[in-house]
Amino acid sequence: MKLLFVGDVVGSPGRKMITEYLPKLKKKYKPAVTIVNGENAAGGRGITEKIYKGFLESGAQAITMGNHTWDNREIFEFIGNAPRLVRPANLPAGVPGVGCTYVKINTLEVAVINLIGRTFMQASDDPFQKAEELIEEARARTPFVFVDFHAEATSEKQAMGWTLDGRATAVVGTHTHVQTADERILPEGTAYLSDVGMTGPRDGILGMERESVLYKFKTGLPARFEVAQGREQLSAVLIDADDKTGRAVSIKRIQIDEDHPFFE
Amino acid sequence: MKLLFVGDVVGSPGRKMITEYLPKLKKKYKPAVTIVNGENAAGGRGITEKIYKGFLESGAQAITMGNHTWDNREIFEFIGNAPRLVRPANLPAGVPGVGCTYVKINTLEVAVINLIGRTFMQASDDPFQKAEELIEEARARTPFVFVDFHAEATSEKQAMGWTLDGRATAVVGTHTHVQTADERILPEGTAYLSDVGMTGPRDGILGMERESVLYKFKTGLPARFEVAQGREQLSAVLIDADDKTGRAVSIKRIQIDEDHPFFE
Amino acid sequence: MKLLFVGDVVGSPGRKMITEYLPKLKKKYKPAVTIVNGENAAGGRGITEKIYKGFLESGAQAITMGNHTWDNREIFEFIGNAPRLVRPANLPAGVPGVGCTYVKINTLEVAVINLIGRTFMQASDDPFQKAEELIEEARARTPFVFVDFHAEATSEKQAMGWTLDGRATAVVGTHTHVQTADERILPEGTAYLSDVGMTGPRDGILGMERESVLYKFKTGLPARFEVAQGREQLSAVLIDADDKTGRAVSIKRIQIDEDHPFFE
Amino acid sequence: MKLLFVGDVVGSPGRKMITEYLPKLKKKYKPAVTIVNGENAAGGRGITEKIYKGFLESGAQAITMGNHTWDNREIFEFIGNAPRLVRPANLPAGVPGVGCTYVKINTLEVAVINLIGRTFMQASDDPFQKAEELIEEARARTPFVFVDFHAEATSEKQAMGWTLDGRATAVVGTHTHVQTADERILPEGTAYLSDVGMTGPRDGILGMERESVLYKFKTGLPARFEVAQGREQLSAVLIDADDKTGRAVSIKRIQIDEDHPFFE
Ligand SMILES: [Fe+2]
Ligand SMILES: [Fe+2]
Ligand SMILES: [Fe+2]
Ligand SMILES: [Fe+2]
Ligand SMILES: [Fe+2]
Ligand SMILES: [Fe+2]
Ligand SMILES: [Fe+2]
Ligand SMILES: [Fe+2]
Repeated sequence: MKLLFVGDVVGSPGRKMITEYLPKLKKKYKPAVTIVNGENAAGGRGITEKIYKGFLESGAQAITMGNHTWDNREIFEFIGNAPRLVRPANLPAGVPGVGCTYVKINTLEVAVINLIGRTFMQASDDPFQKAEELIEEARARTPFVFVDFHAEATSEKQAMGWTLDGRATAVVGTHTHVQTADERILPEGTAYLSDVGMTGPRDGILGMERESVLYKFKTGLPARFEVAQGREQLSAVLIDADDKTGRAVSIKRIQIDEDHPFFE
Repeated sequence: MKLLFVGDVVGSPGRKMITEYLPKLKKKYKPAVTIVNGENAAGGRGITEKIYKGFLESGAQAITMGNHTWDNREIFEFIGNAPRLVRPANLPAGVPGVGCTYVKINTLEVAVINLIGRTFMQASDDPFQKAEELIEEARARTPFVFVDFHAEATSEKQAMGWTLDGRATAVVGTHTHVQTADERILPEGTAYLSDVGMTGPRDGILGMERESVLYKFKTGLPARFEVAQGREQLSAVLIDADDKTGRAVSIKRIQIDEDHPFFE
Repeated sequence: MKLLFVGDVVGSPGRKMITEYLPKLKKKYKPAVTIVNGENAAGGRGITEKIYKGFLESGAQAITMGNHTWDNREIFEFIGNAPRLVRPANLPAGVPGVGCTYVKINTLEVAVINLIGRTFMQASDDPFQKAEELIEEARARTPFVFVDFHAEATSEKQAMGWTLDGRATAVVGTHTHVQTADERILPEGTAYLSDVGMTGPRDGILGMERESVLYKFKTGLPARFEVAQGREQLSAVLIDADDKTGRAVSIKRIQIDEDHPFFE
Repeated sequence: MKLLFVGDVVGSPGRKMITEYLPKLKKKYKPAVTIVNGENAAGGRGITEKIYKGFLESGAQAITMGNHTWDNREIFEFIGNAPRLVRPANLPAGVPGVGCTYVKINTLEVAVINLIGRTFMQASDDPFQKAEELIEEARARTPFVFVDFHAEATSEKQAMGWTLDGRATAVVGTHTHVQTADERILPEGTAYLSDVGMTGPRDGILGMERESVLYKFKTGLPARFEVAQGREQLSAVLIDADDKTGRAVSIKRIQIDEDHPFFE
């Protein structure tokens, strides 16, 4: 069972990469399930219904989110009817949306869980405790459990990977918008990558227009961050899991950009 | 002009990797200058004079540091006589040590600058302003300027890379202990990598013993973090610069571990 | 029903103030219940069994804590047998100790709850959600509910006061070590004070020796913080509640120091 | 020489208190200099030229700011012509405005300095180092130096007070919007108060509409914070200094609200 996950899609440059390359990636790798992190899809902040549906049409079966989940207010209107949209599970009880969804592929199911970190981030419920609850629930249904842990600190991400080793098929990180090179299969069979990286403008700062971000860092004065223009990149990860046990057998980073051209 | 830089060396497992592989890497790649980040070299926290000298004996010409610079108090005794030890330059004026050193290789010189970030880190002077000062000073002496930017946030690291593009030979990050996969030559000729990653125990959390870190995350109770045991890894980066202009012509990530064996 | 609460007792100077003035304050104000925050009682960090028992002998019926709860490791040995020691209730499940205790005074009971904030503090469970659970539990037993909300941010403290207004007899803050002047009875009958302030050395910084703290702020270099010597102060608050309803009828700040001498 | 300082004025309710009570306070206490913190004067966020001029017309001679300095973009248009507007001095070099102004009263001058803290706040230049520079400059001109230290942490505020003791007439804090009760004359003659508190709506949370702030704390969902309505308060401090030496001889907190009515 192959699973393809694309990291934080930023604005229209990111969506353009999804439209262009998601079909090609699916054709090449034939994943059973495709998941996209969409927290920055709408102008860098949040997601709209149209974008959500566009991702599904491009071939994704689930969309995960992060700290930017609520940045585009339109989400409150459609999240109730968006079963494939997964926001961090460890937000306060009562918040709209779900933190776990199940994607059916013929006779198989894949649990897709989104969690958010606390180190250097806004307060939220304990991601480790929430992970324990969800992972047991999920494993009662299926051996295929995918976790997108949206977090800043590498320590918290590694801690989550080791915590779920042997119980999740994959624990991969998002949020820093930079792909890490530490992909591995942990000893008990969980595929791990600290961060999948960003899909969108290649020459911005985390995908945003560079001048504004530099101005902000150097002066502290208010700056309006817009999605950068110019060359694009796509960042993703491909996980192959044993069809019976759900244990990961391989994890492969994917980058598409001028330095890493896509070959069909 | 080739430059080899090894990321945060953690404890005795990290030092063992330096002793074993630094000579081999130097033989293989023949760097003109070799630099090691040593902020975690002494039991995960700081550095001692013996370790500092050991790194030089293993073939390094400069040792950079970070937020753990002062963790081993022995540093206050020898830093005054350790011209190859470079602590973050943007610490308050009057603090011991230097933030920039010049390594001579025959007729060439390489400026080695260490800076520390502010996002999600302890307060310090403005790294961007300090970078401006140092880079101009350095470039008046040599076209070869190496910057180890010890920082947490990918945004701040990318901002530094773009700020110094065309003025530094290389801007590479340290501190997260996870190698990133975003190595590139920026448009004006600066080699960039968000984080070089860690050298030390492979199966810990950032190199520290896993159980304690997990216990701390899950309970919030005090825990004593010790350097992990077991398998090791080495993380480094190799930069090749034009001998005349100092502009980077290539940047190559290096990993040595069980999954990435070293070939002579 | 009168309730006396003494803010963060720091080290031996703070304990000396308790020994000397707690009996006098009790004699003067005749509180039915006396509570002391003891998170800094042992050398500025944590508490020991001897100190805990000393506070009870001096006339306290409950001891609340905060972020320094675990700083003196001795607590792990005696907290299981210290029913009057209340650590923050919103720590992770499974942590030793209790977050609420009931003090019996003849036929009355006072619930004593300790909560800890999250803004600018270490991650913990949601204090507002935990407050909801505990307050309902407590009110099922007694109309007298005292809350020590150990928090940094005034916004979070005020938010807790308004959240519990009409359901707690008093919500008072600790942790900043500086008494605030905003005591009031909120519209539904809850006595509120953002911070009770510190009991201990008057001329330190938050009770700690001044030179070390200044050195740390100005150089960023490591410094060992010791409890300051010299003149002392005591900071407390007295709340009077309606005997039937538990609603606060008055709240009075107490300061004892050279500028505010104690009159019997 | 008497100096009156009014803490963070929040929105129209705060401005109304200034218009109504500043003349009365001046008539009653006859301060030589009157200063107002105006960082929240325009709808809770920043200041406009009209408001700035209104404060001067109401009797203030200088307006200090804080972390909200730039929140109302109109400031960029008039700050260059607003010599009595003082923004934090330890912002990056090159930022508009000044961090110190001199108010002349007949033959006397009062230096008015605004500094901003770094603990739990956005990165800025070192406030202690900047204070050293400015205090020496100011004392070369006048013995009357007033410092508004806009900071979150009580430790940083106390550290500043002790640092400038004997060199500033007064060091008072702003930013937490809650008046502290720790006013004192430090041993070398500097009047100190950790926080002056807020001028504006009394029943909000830090002056903002309660429901939104509570909603944000409890759900983490986005909320638009508006200035609260209803009853108002004014928070201020009066400092009396020796006419020759500039040493403080008294410091008195002022609160005006329903519980603390103003008497002429
Ligand atoms: Fe993102
Ligand atoms: Fe994010
Ligand atoms: Fe490190
Ligand atoms: Fe570090
Ligand atoms: Fe305390
Ligand atoms: Fe505390
Ligand atoms: Fe304010
Ligand atoms: Fe402020």
